[in-house]
Amino acid sequence: MKLYFSPLACSLATRIALYEAGAEAQFVEVDGKTKRTSDDSDFQRISGLGMVPVLVADDGRVLAENAAILPFVADRFPAAALAPTDPEGRTRLHQWLSFIGTELHKTIFVPLLDETAPEAVKAYALARAPKRLDWLATKLEGRSYLLDTPSVADAYLFAVLNWSAVTAIQLRNWPALAAYMKNLHARPAFARAFEEEKALWIAELQRRGQPLPAIAV
Amino acid sequence: MKLYFSPLACSLATRIALYEAGAEAQFVEVDGKTKRTSDDSDFQRISGLGMVPVLVADDGRVLAENAAILPFVADRFPAAALAPTDPEGRTRLHQWLSFIGTELHKTIFVPLLDETAPEAVKAYALARAPKRLDWLATKLEGRSYLLDTPSVADAYLFAVLNWSAVTAIQLRNWPALAAYMKNLHARPAFARAFEEEKALWIAELQRRGQPLPAIAV
Repeated sequence: MKLYFSPLACSLATRIALYEAGAEAQFVEVDGKTKRTSDDSDFQRISGLGMVPVLVADDGRVLAENAAILPFVADRFPAAALAPTDPEGRTRLHQWLSFIGTELHKTIFVPLLDETAPEAVKAYALARAPKRLDWLATKLEGRSYLLDTPSVADAYLFAVLNWSAVTAIQLRNWPALAAYMKNLHARPAFARAFEEEKALWIAELQRRGQPLPAIAV
Repeated sequence: MKLYFSPLACSLATRIALYEAGAEAQFVEVDGKTKRTSDDSDFQRISGLGMVPVLVADDGRVLAENAAILPFVADRFPAAALAPTDPEGRTRLHQWLSFIGTELHKTIFVPLLDETAPEAVKAYALARAPKRLDWLATKLEGRSYLLDTPSVADAYLFAVLNWSAVTAIQLRNWPALAAYMKNLHARPAFARAFEEEKALWIAELQRRGQPLPAIAV
């Protein structure tokens, strides 16, 4: 199994799932700007959209999209119980993966993280955050996980909410979200994946000669 | 089974799936602006996010998110074969539902359809269309459906690509997409759902005293 990732991109969620499962996997870094991979390939030829994550399964299938890759990894390593297998639980899992992907990842964070996005675009995205984060906070109030036990949906939400550190979104304004993130950071697989990719992200910024944000130092 | 929908919103996909399945269902219209329902309820109390589709299952469960509702409907009516049931097919289904939801629906069309979005926001969204539609067109070249047979993913893509008619996106620039849409329009369930919701959409515009776009007349 081979995961194409970029440091601290949403592909972090799949790394977390693989670490939670204790899975053997190869990790290939993709430069988000040049689209070159760390094993010297052109990522555009692997993924027509040029987007991480891409997972190459043991049988050679090339998978894309967090909401498909994450359940695939969970099913591949059932002992880790990273996704419900009953139909009702499965529907709840896909509700969360879809909410995170559509309402948080794409609606709020992609424009906020895009260095090329005009200010009006960032303002429009930022204005959409309170309603969605308020609602999410009510759902996470008094809970440690989105479902009853840790799942790949938590891995995805963790990867996405981590981005708030380099945006104008202050998670401490939503205590339920801050507590949820702190709890996940205490899980060894989440902490290891995050720290490893943070180091790779800093190295990438340094290679490019970009200034390090306060969060990185 | 009860579907909360707004005319020609993404909830159209679930109506199509229900018609394809020959399912009995109740349809409750939600005014996208006032959030009042046609049975005189406050939709915000049914869906905290105020977003259609919401599906109330026969057992009373309240489901949200296209990528969860559509597979749920497919599984509820297995004779219609609107979703693969094998793991590999299921992964492909979720790849498509995720791509449509994240890259087309939220990245391109939501800003283009939002009357309150500033021009810079619409321009940013429009600039993201060619890469995604080019890629999609290569995948649909010579194919009638996203998977091997008609599925709920086609219902979702149909609902989303229909919106191009009221945007600057000209589907005829992508012959594979135009042919795909024409083929789906020829399916009775798709045509019936579309024509019924188009009539409701025109009625909604007239109730509000809004001018009818050229496409509506």
